Amino acid sequence: MPNPRAAMLVIGNEILSGRTRDANMHFLAGEFTKRGIDLAEVRVVSDNRAAIVAALRSLKADFDLVVTSGGIGPTHDDITADCVAEAFGVPIDVRDDARAILAAHYERTGKELNEARLRMARIPEGAHLIENPVSAAPGFILGNVHVMAGVPQVFQAMVASVLPGLTGGAPLLSQSIRVERGEGDIAQPLRALADEFSDLDFGSYPFHENGIYGAHVVVRGTDGARVDAAMTRLAETFSA
Amino acid sequence: MPNPRAAMLVIGNEILSGRTRDANMHFLAGEFTKRGIDLAEVRVVSDNRAAIVAALRSLKADFDLVVTSGGIGPTHDDITADCVAEAFGVPIDVRDDARAILAAHYERTGKELNEARLRMARIPEGAHLIENPVSAAPGFILGNVHVMAGVPQVFQAMVASVLPGLTGGAPLLSQSIRVERGEGDIAQPLRALADEFSDLDFGSYPFHENGIYGAHVVVRGTDGARVDAAMTRLAETFSA
Repeated sequence: MPNPRAAMLVIGNEILSGRTRDANMHFLAGEFTKRGIDLAEVRVVSDNRAAIVAALRSLKADFDLVVTSGGIGPTHDDITADCVAEAFGVPIDVRDDARAILAAHYERTGKELNEARLRMARIPEGAHLIENPVSAAPGFILGNVHVMAGVPQVFQAMVASVLPGLTGGAPLLSQSIRVERGEGDIAQPLRALADEFSDLDFGSYPFHENGIYGAHVVVRGTDGARVDAAMTRLAETFSA
Repeated sequence: MPNPRAAMLVIGNEILSGRTRDANMHFLAGEFTKRGIDLAEVRVVSDNRAAIVAALRSLKADFDLVVTSGGIGPTHDDITADCVAEAFGVPIDVRDDARAILAAHYERTGKELNEARLRMARIPEGAHLIENPVSAAPGFILGNVHVMAGVPQVFQAMVASVLPGLTGGAPLLSQSIRVERGEGDIAQPLRALADEFSDLDFGSYPFHENGIYGAHVVVRGTDGARVDAAMTRLAETFSA
């Protein structure tokens, strides 16, 4: 069975303006790879309602699984939940179980559950909540869309809450070697190896450090013995 | 006149597998913001021909300007130029001026311009070359699509080659304050300020550090006096 194909939607003005460098995409990519889920596409859009809804509609139709990050806090620019409801054509309102989670959290921390915070209990109809052990306000799952917070600690905690319920394939294994030769010198033998080991994925990632041109050649596959065999051949081919 | 709206397409298995953390998106976002170009969407796709062509067709139609990064080297997984040709419906072949650039570079560096390296001279018909002062192999511009290398040093050099030719709007200015209060406490006054200064963009980016919950509130706009006025009001509102 092929691995499930996943997409991520990052809702993040702060990434598009260059203010923040992405962390959640990098984290999710690593977790999915370990678990045998292929992260096949990522989109980053701003907190614009039309852009978010269009991306959600496209990704939820094209992929087995979608993860969103960002836009579920209490401020005016947090519109992800409403956009998910619109993309699925379902109503959205404050839900009692989500409100109870928030009420308990703010009572414990001595803060007021005001109107702004209550926005975080707005959950589209039919969704399941995702636990947030860091700051209480839940994420949710609707259909194949998993809606999570943008703050990295909270995002990571939500991913941990959700991962055990996701069906992955065989974990993708990878090994790499560093070749201190220009990519143009290794391209032809590398293509020959890629053709020979057609069940594996061969990537070449060039580097240029201290005047040395070279490439990290990465072999990925689900069968460890095959990856080992390819690495042995790579080492023979490029050690001369 | 509104600022031009740009999109970026990152062709990067290594980012989707979690092997590499993105750098080019972050760099381009900062450069565009300084120059008054709105980076409105980023997509990351793997080096899959159908995925690249579909993303190119969608982005070049929806945005004023598209920048791609990655997939223009000499190895078998470098298929960006062919995908751009397909997306525009134009032929692609080795072009004399690009071949001459490569030939001069490899003669200077004592390397062979072999078949693999010659792939980097494949340029879609009608494209203009983008200078690559780092490693010679050029990028190109076809229509509104700017095709650049994925290696960060080369990507940055190509962006520098291209930026002077791009028409930007007024640079987007931003200022921010750090508020050590939960977002839920600042959401209502912040919404009121955002409504009052409707010509500016107000973002709230929560943080949680050493047990302190707070938010960086960022004000963005093209009119410095208005941004200053909003910051004064923000400071008054949240200094109590």
